Amino acid sequence: MSTKEIVLPLVIVQIVLLILFCVFGRYAPPGGDEKYPLFQDVHVMIFIGFGFLMTFLKRYGYSSVGFTLLLGSFIIQWAILCQGFFELNADYKIEIGIESIYRADIAAASVLISVGVVLGRTTVPHLLIMGLIEIVVFSANSYLGTKVLQVADAGGSIFVHAFGAYFGLAVSYVLNRKKKNKEGSSETAASLAEANYTSDLFAMIGTVFLYIYWPSFNAIELEGSQKSMAIVNTYLSLAACTITAFAASMLLTHEKKFDMVHVQNSTLAGGVAVGAAANLMIQPLGAVAIGILAGVISVYGYSRLSPLIEKRLGIPDTCGVHNLHGMPGILSGLFSVLMAGIATEELYGADLYSVYPARDATTGRNAGEQAGYQLFGLAITIAVAVGTGLLTGKLKILEF
Amino acid sequence: MSTKEIVLPLVIVQIVLLILFCVFGRYAPPGGDEKYPLFQDVHVMIFIGFGFLMTFLKRYGYSSVGFTLLLGSFIIQWAILCQGFFELNADYKIEIGIESIYRADIAAASVLISVGVVLGRTTVPHLLIMGLIEIVVFSANSYLGTKVLQVADAGGSIFVHAFGAYFGLAVSYVLNRKKKNKEGSSETAASLAEANYTSDLFAMIGTVFLYIYWPSFNAIELEGSQKSMAIVNTYLSLAACTITAFAASMLLTHEKKFDMVHVQNSTLAGGVAVGAAANLMIQPLGAVAIGILAGVISVYGYSRLSPLIEKRLGIPDTCGVHNLHGMPGILSGLFSVLMAGIATEELYGADLYSVYPARDATTGRNAGEQAGYQLFGLAITIAVAVGTGLLTGKLKILEF
Amino acid sequence: MSTKEIVLPLVIVQIVLLILFCVFGRYAPPGGDEKYPLFQDVHVMIFIGFGFLMTFLKRYGYSSVGFTLLLGSFIIQWAILCQGFFELNADYKIEIGIESIYRADIAAASVLISVGVVLGRTTVPHLLIMGLIEIVVFSANSYLGTKVLQVADAGGSIFVHAFGAYFGLAVSYVLNRKKKNKEGSSETAASLAEANYTSDLFAMIGTVFLYIYWPSFNAIELEGSQKSMAIVNTYLSLAACTITAFAASMLLTHEKKFDMVHVQNSTLAGGVAVGAAANLMIQPLGAVAIGILAGVISVYGYSRLSPLIEKRLGIPDTCGVHNLHGMPGILSGLFSVLMAGIATEELYGADLYSVYPARDATTGRNAGEQAGYQLFGLAITIAVAVGTGLLTGKLKILEF
Repeated sequence: MSTKEIVLPLVIVQIVLLILFCVFGRYAPPGGDEKYPLFQDVHVMIFIGFGFLMTFLKRYGYSSVGFTLLLGSFIIQWAILCQGFFELNADYKIEIGIESIYRADIAAASVLISVGVVLGRTTVPHLLIMGLIEIVVFSANSYLGTKVLQVADAGGSIFVHAFGAYFGLAVSYVLNRKKKNKEGSSETAASLAEANYTSDLFAMIGTVFLYIYWPSFNAIELEGSQKSMAIVNTYLSLAACTITAFAASMLLTHEKKFDMVHVQNSTLAGGVAVGAAANLMIQPLGAVAIGILAGVISVYGYSRLSPLIEKRLGIPDTCGVHNLHGMPGILSGLFSVLMAGIATEELYGADLYSVYPARDATTGRNAGEQAGYQLFGLAITIAVAVGTGLLTGKLKILEF
Repeated sequence: MSTKEIVLPLVIVQIVLLILFCVFGRYAPPGGDEKYPLFQDVHVMIFIGFGFLMTFLKRYGYSSVGFTLLLGSFIIQWAILCQGFFELNADYKIEIGIESIYRADIAAASVLISVGVVLGRTTVPHLLIMGLIEIVVFSANSYLGTKVLQVADAGGSIFVHAFGAYFGLAVSYVLNRKKKNKEGSSETAASLAEANYTSDLFAMIGTVFLYIYWPSFNAIELEGSQKSMAIVNTYLSLAACTITAFAASMLLTHEKKFDMVHVQNSTLAGGVAVGAAANLMIQPLGAVAIGILAGVISVYGYSRLSPLIEKRLGIPDTCGVHNLHGMPGILSGLFSVLMAGIATEELYGADLYSVYPARDATTGRNAGEQAGYQLFGLAITIAVAVGTGLLTGKLKILEF
Repeated sequence: MSTKEIVLPLVIVQIVLLILFCVFGRYAPPGGDEKYPLFQDVHVMIFIGFGFLMTFLKRYGYSSVGFTLLLGSFIIQWAILCQGFFELNADYKIEIGIESIYRADIAAASVLISVGVVLGRTTVPHLLIMGLIEIVVFSANSYLGTKVLQVADAGGSIFVHAFGAYFGLAVSYVLNRKKKNKEGSSETAASLAEANYTSDLFAMIGTVFLYIYWPSFNAIELEGSQKSMAIVNTYLSLAACTITAFAASMLLTHEKKFDMVHVQNSTLAGGVAVGAAANLMIQPLGAVAIGILAGVISVYGYSRLSPLIEKRLGIPDTCGVHNLHGMPGILSGLFSVLMAGIATEELYGADLYSVYPARDATTGRNAGEQAGYQLFGLAITIAVAVGTGLLTGKLKILEF
């Protein structure tokens, strides 16, 4: 999996985490237990879902699951601390409870998404460094977006999926140029994948658990009727996306079989695409429509765009993250702009102010302003992700 | 997995679903959140349980999981609509909430059971058509049975398992005759199964998740003490059935090994057999006893009856659905007749009227009448399943 | 998997269970439903977690999952009865409800731990007999420890993990001597393991599900703030342990790869080690620290101690249970002694008396006394486990 060089970084990292937990970590006051079953669903998505989904890379098969366990275990500790620094209590302590751990898992999703872009073309220590940096930026950007700008993004399509995808793509761009300059050539994403019957079935464990528990991912921050709506919307969007992805896969491939990459990935684009609007009044129709759109875009991306992006822009994307998290994340963000623009108290009742807290009397935003903030939040997230991703890739320590 | 012919049906189907959701779909009022964790258990059963259980067919290995994802995604959307048409609100809209989605998953179980009968001997488009028709009949029959006739069937042994099994067997009968007439011979169920070490382990993922979450399947419609009883009864019935199935497997096979088909399937017959009586006062003894009986019947079915049914009646049954869902479903139905006949207020207290709503003052059914309705519900379900299954198999479009 | 000899024992066992459920089994009064989601998590750990973790033994691959299903199904019925005999109601009946079934699953964990020691070196009937005896002793020892001595052990590190490990090691010691005397040689644990790419991935299914749901295992007996603390502590301990186990694995092996056995097992030692202190005021720092310690001890055990214990003491340990459950269990027990000794009302508030019921006014234990009881509980558990394990191994019926 990697050379002995990794021992020292791991030891240092875990000792630093220990010290930080000693200085800053305290238990949160009781509460949040009702979120625990949904947290467990998300936990399965992170460690089983992402872990097994990436076994499609046969020669990294085992490592993808073991590696997800290792990287995830580091990221969740680090994310508890980073996210906690933005919400220190009066004694300058981080209060750790159920909310901290499910938010740490969500942060881990963002890193695992970025990892999917460069997987197989870099080493474990480099991925740890990338994750270390990414979580800092992720936490700051999420805080800025959700707390300062008050952008509504229940399922994290903007701050988790789009962020993770574009951060990873930016890192991949720089790494690929470094490699070309050094070796004169670079390994293509396609050359890494050597799926077979067995590895495809293992990957389907990941796909199906992600499909099953995605409604929990999109609903975990919500309560009451918004929670039920997010569950129903995600359920419908994924179902519609799956049918569409299978059909599009057939249309866009020359063979007479479904392309396994589409089956394993594009079927899930509906979960991303409905995310930022999962708790909005999109109605079952809206959920199904966005699922269909996501399925088409994602399969099109895998079969047409990704090869172009690799060839023309020099950005290899091992797992096709751009097609599962990138474009569907932007789609979701744009949809959330539209929905914010037409949100009225008539449509939402009193829920309007829990969906869009900035629209209450104190801040007094109107629908158009909220739509503007949604768009601004999306744009700044992509800008931050690309900018910090490029810088991360340029770090001397990441000389591959 | 299939030819390009499937693209158009998939596109049409998803567009029609979109239009129907547009015209009829609305959010349900808040509520039902407490069912969400049990729904997720059932969701795992449908997509992981059924999907992986069917990987025992080595040459369909991958497709069984991917296909379950595709078919399931279609069926759950269609089932929400079909079941909703029987409960339109005052504005002629279907109210979609947590209840709709777990009921859609249960409906999908019934189709996946039927699919198990004909799996490997038909094409994906044909299975979609079969599912399309089956859900209409399933929804009508369930409505008739549970709402009109007020038959008690907490775990769906009658309306889901027996229905799905006999519908599938009827379809299989017709398809097999069509094939024989055309080709002069037909592929036997046995010839399709080419299990090996790896595919057996994948199948065990399905088996074990079905075993684990079956108590949730039988308890999801229940509340309070009935819910706990259904959980305990299903847990005990499955455990007793497993021991029995292993023993029976040894007795009835000539080899010195357990037959993997029995291990993967018959161990689960206890979940089906206890279903219709899961919330009844059968006591732990009753749960264990019915589990033992189910294990014996199921293994006997696999090793003795199924080959006869294929040879004499010309009904191949790829997954041995008759032995896991058919006979145990009938057993459960008959057991529910018996239990209804001896149900008194003394035994059940006030719960009697939530178990058997028709026995309250308004309808005024007595124990014997309720037993009669249980028997009638079982008989009519099998008749409807067989009748509509035969008609479905005869459809010109299903010329295999 | 085994010869026909197993049929009769299985039939007898299931009939005896049936009779015992008939005579003693009744439904518990309503209640305990809020534990059901956590029970389901534990249920996955037992049947998926343990089942797949043991597939690393390639040649026992399939059987490990099927066998876990068989043995587990027997043990959970038997454990409901054995544990129930210690809490008969006024009518001398065992009241069976949600609490009974999650406690039965926990008891099954203890037997599966012991099985891990002797796996691959004994037959199915012998393992059934071992489990039969072990559950009796387990139930008595747990009752003595938690109810009579009032030892606090929320996550079962002492009464489940340490007990199961040392019982199994004692059985293994005797069996190994019997075998040597008979055959002149004995099969080493190492010779049984023939892991490959595929079996390693299957084993990771077990590892990752155990990792994911371990917080539920440690929290299932708890309520309110203790429950949240147990969840957070277990989550952190496992994460820290995983990082440490990967680093230690690199340091202690000569190859340039992580040792899969460490990745699959030692990563989980943090769950065991934090168990007895999971609901104590150890703070996030304490959880991380104990996770680190557990990771080091466990990997050291696998790479250095286990070969010595096999060679010098003649105790083969197929799954390295001593390193995952034995030593981390003792570590947890000792940690619980320390924590009990410093527990004050100032630190715990009113929770002190729910954490340590014996410290209330009636019994009036002080901190030092409670610490003494914790140590005594740990010592007596190991003594009982070793003693009864030796006797079990010596049984004539277990002539291998």
